[in-house]
Amino acid sequence: MAIRLGENNYGKSHVRLLRVTRQEGRHDIKELTLAIQLEGGFEAAHTKGDNRKILPTDTMKNTVYALARQHSIEAVENFCLHLIEHFLTYNPQISRVKIEAAEDRWARLPLGGKPYPSAFTRAGEEKRTAMLSGTRKETTVRAGIKGLVVMKTSKSAFENFLKDPFTWLYAGNDVEFGSIWHGVREMLLETFAEHDSKSLQHTLYAMGEAVLKNFDNIREIHFSLPNKHFNLVDLAPLGMDNPGYVYLPTDEPHGLIEATVRKD
Amino acid sequence: MAIRLGENNYGKSHVRLLRVTRQEGRHDIKELTLAIQLEGGFEAAHTKGDNRKILPTDTMKNTVYALARQHSIEAVENFCLHLIEHFLTYNPQISRVKIEAAEDRWARLPLGGKPYPSAFTRAGEEKRTAMLSGTRKETTVRAGIKGLVVMKTSKSAFENFLKDPFTWLYAGNDVEFGSIWHGVREMLLETFAEHDSKSLQHTLYAMGEAVLKNFDNIREIHFSLPNKHFNLVDLAPLGMDNPGYVYLPTDEPHGLIEATVRKD
Amino acid sequence: MAIRLGENNYGKSHVRLLRVTRQEGRHDIKELTLAIQLEGGFEAAHTKGDNRKILPTDTMKNTVYALARQHSIEAVENFCLHLIEHFLTYNPQISRVKIEAAEDRWARLPLGGKPYPSAFTRAGEEKRTAMLSGTRKETTVRAGIKGLVVMKTSKSAFENFLKDPFTWLYAGNDVEFGSIWHGVREMLLETFAEHDSKSLQHTLYAMGEAVLKNFDNIREIHFSLPNKHFNLVDLAPLGMDNPGYVYLPTDEPHGLIEATVRKD
Amino acid sequence: MAIRLGENNYGKSHVRLLRVTRQEGRHDIKELTLAIQLEGGFEAAHTKGDNRKILPTDTMKNTVYALARQHSIEAVENFCLHLIEHFLTYNPQISRVKIEAAEDRWARLPLGGKPYPSAFTRAGEEKRTAMLSGTRKETTVRAGIKGLVVMKTSKSAFENFLKDPFTWLYAGNDVEFGSIWHGVREMLLETFAEHDSKSLQHTLYAMGEAVLKNFDNIREIHFSLPNKHFNLVDLAPLGMDNPGYVYLPTDEPHGLIEATVRKD
Repeated sequence: MAIRLGENNYGKSHVRLLRVTRQEGRHDIKELTLAIQLEGGFEAAHTKGDNRKILPTDTMKNTVYALARQHSIEAVENFCLHLIEHFLTYNPQISRVKIEAAEDRWARLPLGGKPYPSAFTRAGEEKRTAMLSGTRKETTVRAGIKGLVVMKTSKSAFENFLKDPFTWLYAGNDVEFGSIWHGVREMLLETFAEHDSKSLQHTLYAMGEAVLKNFDNIREIHFSLPNKHFNLVDLAPLGMDNPGYVYLPTDEPHGLIEATVRKD
Repeated sequence: MAIRLGENNYGKSHVRLLRVTRQEGRHDIKELTLAIQLEGGFEAAHTKGDNRKILPTDTMKNTVYALARQHSIEAVENFCLHLIEHFLTYNPQISRVKIEAAEDRWARLPLGGKPYPSAFTRAGEEKRTAMLSGTRKETTVRAGIKGLVVMKTSKSAFENFLKDPFTWLYAGNDVEFGSIWHGVREMLLETFAEHDSKSLQHTLYAMGEAVLKNFDNIREIHFSLPNKHFNLVDLAPLGMDNPGYVYLPTDEPHGLIEATVRKD
Repeated sequence: MAIRLGENNYGKSHVRLLRVTRQEGRHDIKELTLAIQLEGGFEAAHTKGDNRKILPTDTMKNTVYALARQHSIEAVENFCLHLIEHFLTYNPQISRVKIEAAEDRWARLPLGGKPYPSAFTRAGEEKRTAMLSGTRKETTVRAGIKGLVVMKTSKSAFENFLKDPFTWLYAGNDVEFGSIWHGVREMLLETFAEHDSKSLQHTLYAMGEAVLKNFDNIREIHFSLPNKHFNLVDLAPLGMDNPGYVYLPTDEPHGLIEATVRKD
Repeated sequence: MAIRLGENNYGKSHVRLLRVTRQEGRHDIKELTLAIQLEGGFEAAHTKGDNRKILPTDTMKNTVYALARQHSIEAVENFCLHLIEHFLTYNPQISRVKIEAAEDRWARLPLGGKPYPSAFTRAGEEKRTAMLSGTRKETTVRAGIKGLVVMKTSKSAFENFLKDPFTWLYAGNDVEFGSIWHGVREMLLETFAEHDSKSLQHTLYAMGEAVLKNFDNIREIHFSLPNKHFNLVDLAPLGMDNPGYVYLPTDEPHGLIEATVRKD
């Protein structure tokens, strides 16, 4: 019986960044939090304490800031593709780079009926997410939504609310990531609202089917939906009925429904 | 030297509630979390273990649900006024009722260009708050905003973002709480965006002055503003300048600026 | 009707610090998080944008680090007394300094039956706290405990657990803060365990009385106790009884009991 | 191109439980939080809204309480094995049951030098965890530790602290889960303290090797270690040196080191 090192990776998490693009009469901002993980030839660091092949995690962080200085950031997926290419190009010992990104979204303050050019408010808890995994052969790109909370009070066999996350896999990297993200989000919400639901499983399958039918370059979509309950309060001990008026929102216990819907 | 009981109060916190109002073709919802505290003649419970004057905290909770069954909830302040009146009317041993309320705001899903009648999404982290304190002689009403995050990238001597809370005191109880709340919020945001700021203290005073000048029935306004910093990343070690492009968002340490502005 | 600035203060929060004292064969560590607030002549900063009297919050932070470099930190209260004295001595425009401190406690790893000299583990969620408020005339010192969670399964009319905080006020500043803190903590726990409780109010008064009787230089003690419930699970629908075997721990709603016990 | 349902599962999360065992002169308590996930023949629920094969998540929750009523809970792993067996026995449509469990640990209050029989305090943030996955053919059992925070101030090339989680895989189910859990924990801490570390990778491999060498029925161990930094504060701008006295504890960004060490 031998003891040996198995799968291993390391990196830097919670790398935070605000990128400001200042044009005459209009500022644009983008706030990101990144986690970078590297796989590669790191066995000697573990077994012998030999750190020569270890790219310091502070260098990973500095690379993020340097690339953010050089490029304005439109879609977070494109920025991550740059980062992956950079790490693979300059570090032969690295075989795979994984990046998870979350965008904290900001909205312009609406003042006097129009958006203000340089004042912003946080656009809710909802985050746009991206998960990329790249080698020298190929890079897969997943996008997603985290923190989106929805509920409906009709067309449903249940009383509760759903809270993300959704993630989907693109068929390649040559994608208009920004506009598709907004399109998928709209399609998910529309199907959720309109679907005549027999169960959460039933609704999420319909949501997945709608996305896959309408977006050619999405190959699969994954749901992992906490299903938090609104329990109808029993008012009988107080001598009252309660025909759908008063509910107790609960966080625990909650259901959790997970599924992948994909194209063959 | 004698040992004696000083100020004391007790109650129920985190009482959660979803109220649904179902009309033909349109549902309305209101989600609240309440904390109720009672002051009164509770000395014997402490010193002798005599619980006869103690209103059980479960009864407080049930009272919330019973009143929510009987009344639809428009402004949270009016619902809290009902609760205070109820506790003072039926419990002579209670001298003061304090209620803190937070409303989790929901927005209708916008589908096909118009708001959907019975499907909703959480309207951000921002909460509408209310703090009432009532005796048999008078009741004071404070309203507020919690979780509102704002920043600006011009007209400012600093780079950072602010995160509530704001609270203000009404001159009485006969107030259109709902429309004033939205008006105050708009005025705070507008002044924040437009003010040529020398410091946070300077901006918050201007915000308070604007609210007090424009709303007759607001007597004072209080700010307690965490001031979180965006630190300009030093890219010189990487051989780059950074003229306001790349910032590090930080949560700690942060400034905290507190002030009350009031009418004499 | 005039609009004017009322009470105001500003400062730096979440200033974090690890102090290491390295002696031959033994290292000691102390981890603190501080919040400092200043009161004084800051009106012009608010009303005129004149910042000349504003001590920058970064200077407050640096003062913490400089004093921590110069003095080893025994009791957190003594370190805060130094800070207050420093700010009042060098800044005539400051009239009051308030400091809140929380100590994250570390314990030595117990290896081979004895404490290890330079390896540590976090000693639970429980924090030692201190709140000081100083002017040029006098400084009041409060100490406390935060994050202490206790429950008992006998000698109680209820099934639940308590979670701090406790705070107490010292009669002066010439106190052995460290040893008294441990003594008060022990007395609180002992009284909690032994007291034949008719209610939480009954128990907390007994705890306060025990502390005040046994510690001459404590003048008052304050409790603010969330009372979280263990609800007996109703197993009757499953055809089973449940004589005190299976409980559902809950976080919300919860009771909240607050009281001050003091010496006349 | 066909659209079809891929991997899917559903269940109940955050099922909380306190089990009290009352013996003459001594009470024992166990607090658990469980998440249960089922895999099986649930396709029709997704694609057709046919819920006949869906075991309601409330039934899962009730099963937890019923089994907890019938059996006292020693090791959490054994309780989860009972649950898995129950679900597989009574539900032919279920092919796999996954359970994740976390134990909130309580310690007896030490009063007058001995442990109190029926009063407890929370034993830190650290949790004992278990992850089981069972089919009709075999069940794998993993145990772990979550929330254990450690640091050392010597024998290290770095200044920082580590925060779990550790998980390990047992070679079978016939294991003294309780005593081994404590043994593994002790071995991990001892190796951490004693190891002359060239890097975190170096230390974690040594920790894994020690566990695998000393415990016959552990087949592999997995580490996922956030590495949070204590940054030496630069006091030079204040005219002071800082030879390892004053550090800034940070939460972000942080390193993350992951690896599996296993027996061949």
